[in-house]
Amino acid sequence: MTLLDVAQEAGVSRSTASRVLSGATSISADARDRVEAAAARLGYRPNRAAQSLRTRRTRLVGLVLNNLVNASFHAIAEVLQQRLDDRGYQVILCVTGADEDREARYLEMLAEHQVDGVVVIGTGRNVALLERIVDEGIPVLSLIRCAPEAPGEAVLADDSDGAYLATEHLLDAGHRRIGYIGGPLEANSGRERFHGYAAALTSAGLQVVDDLVVRGPFLESFGEKALAALLDRDDAPTALYVANHEAAFGVLPELRERGVSVPDDVSLICHEDVSWFRYWQPAITVIDNGATELAELAANRVLAAIERGPGGTQSGRAMRVGARLVQRASVARPRA
Amino acid sequence: MTLLDVAQEAGVSRSTASRVLSGATSISADARDRVEAAAARLGYRPNRAAQSLRTRRTRLVGLVLNNLVNASFHAIAEVLQQRLDDRGYQVILCVTGADEDREARYLEMLAEHQVDGVVVIGTGRNVALLERIVDEGIPVLSLIRCAPEAPGEAVLADDSDGAYLATEHLLDAGHRRIGYIGGPLEANSGRERFHGYAAALTSAGLQVVDDLVVRGPFLESFGEKALAALLDRDDAPTALYVANHEAAFGVLPELRERGVSVPDDVSLICHEDVSWFRYWQPAITVIDNGATELAELAANRVLAAIERGPGGTQSGRAMRVGARLVQRASVARPRA
Repeated sequence: MTLLDVAQEAGVSRSTASRVLSGATSISADARDRVEAAAARLGYRPNRAAQSLRTRRTRLVGLVLNNLVNASFHAIAEVLQQRLDDRGYQVILCVTGADEDREARYLEMLAEHQVDGVVVIGTGRNVALLERIVDEGIPVLSLIRCAPEAPGEAVLADDSDGAYLATEHLLDAGHRRIGYIGGPLEANSGRERFHGYAAALTSAGLQVVDDLVVRGPFLESFGEKALAALLDRDDAPTALYVANHEAAFGVLPELRERGVSVPDDVSLICHEDVSWFRYWQPAITVIDNGATELAELAANRVLAAIERGPGGTQSGRAMRVGARLVQRASVARPRA
Repeated sequence: MTLLDVAQEAGVSRSTASRVLSGATSISADARDRVEAAAARLGYRPNRAAQSLRTRRTRLVGLVLNNLVNASFHAIAEVLQQRLDDRGYQVILCVTGADEDREARYLEMLAEHQVDGVVVIGTGRNVALLERIVDEGIPVLSLIRCAPEAPGEAVLADDSDGAYLATEHLLDAGHRRIGYIGGPLEANSGRERFHGYAAALTSAGLQVVDDLVVRGPFLESFGEKALAALLDRDDAPTALYVANHEAAFGVLPELRERGVSVPDDVSLICHEDVSWFRYWQPAITVIDNGATELAELAANRVLAAIERGPGGTQSGRAMRVGARLVQRASVARPRA
């Protein structure tokens, strides 16, 4: 079944049939209808591989991320796929397990598949490779995580703003000793959330107390240890801001284990929402970093770069999606 | 940068270079090393679109599913992607929102992209289209959900067995009035889980009591209603088997809302695990349907069909992954 068969069936020239089926708009409605009807009758299906060689567009976008199970990554993957599909692009899914070598291999593979663009929630350790990909004319959009020198463009959560909102909310409730459980300073989220926390304390005329700040890896087990380090002090904090999402999964069961009542004994805000935080007893007040909006903005920016074509350059800028405080039931005034 | 450049740099023929880079195994280790080193030195990247036209393999597999947010779909997507990648295949992700028209559009698109295979957690309402795709030489693997007349092959959870295990566990704990909250009989999971429930009752010398069986759509809101219908009876059940996964998200908060104590007032088993069921108070006893094993088996079967090539036919069979009972704290003996 060839394009010529469709053209003959429709009674138009091969070039008219080709233009209709490649989506050109300057065709009479009558010719378009006849070609589409003929293609449907004959079960004609354009060969995308041949089309890609001609158009130099594969209509494929790579999505490289850590995992689909934790955090809001699966929500992001779902929304990104939908938004790209709305514009006729499909997603090649690549799960790295936060392994930089696997990430590099996927990025090479995506370039071989000649994807039209790449969205990467990255390890930050393949900057040179990302630069090469951008040099080959493939736009790169770093999402949520981004090394400072990464090429292309970035869409990031406003982590500093979110941390400020969380800390301010605890201050407004009357807390003065606010424990901070965060990620390492090398991670942009770890750095920026700490800055937001510190800025809110400063605005309230307080100083960061080093003993109330615990930083560690993005692991559940770190959350347990960090909680113990804070609560076993004589001058334990009356409120906790858990800025390390994975650590929250250690902090919450450990609070229950220790018989610490939230918010009576200690108030709590976690950064990044997951579905079951609203089912926790008490429901957890969170900073929602806007997974849907992050994915929408990423789709929008990578499509804009793709559609400018290989000559067009990306801005080199980071766009930020603002954070939102979602008040539930885990914050109260400190005990007198 | 062409294949000929790589061959010259490596000091081998163009055909040897081509065979090494396309992964042929019958090449001397020495030649292979030289070609791979030359390709790396020159930054040679094979053009996959040109390669696909030659080999008639795109090394792409479509994954069509409802969503990435609920149930174990994101775990399945992650494991499937990893297993396919291990064998050099990448996943094009298509999220249908359980909409049959969107599903049809994705299936057409995947055929246009000439994917080497399709894995579909489907609506069951595009059987004719799936048949056409199989006729075009693209293997189709139905995962978890499958219309009886679907072509290709299927990998399914052993829903009947899982339901039997759940019901038997409640019977063993001494329950005789066991409420059933399930999906519609038109869904294979709804039908098979009900059969397993009925079979376990029969084995224990009991009969299905129609008033203890509530079936409805895969929605949280149905769970609330079904719970009310069962608990508001004079002869309310002493145990519940929630076979409808989405309904469980309505049942659990509603039990808490009503002040019903689990397992003191009522015992509970849910079918299909999610991460936070172990954090619920009490932790929920579940039937784990084996998301990882389902994905592994699906990858294995679709790869086998792809590698048999376009002449090879699929078995038309359904493979089943056995269920497992995971005991936590939501089942106890009924009150005397």
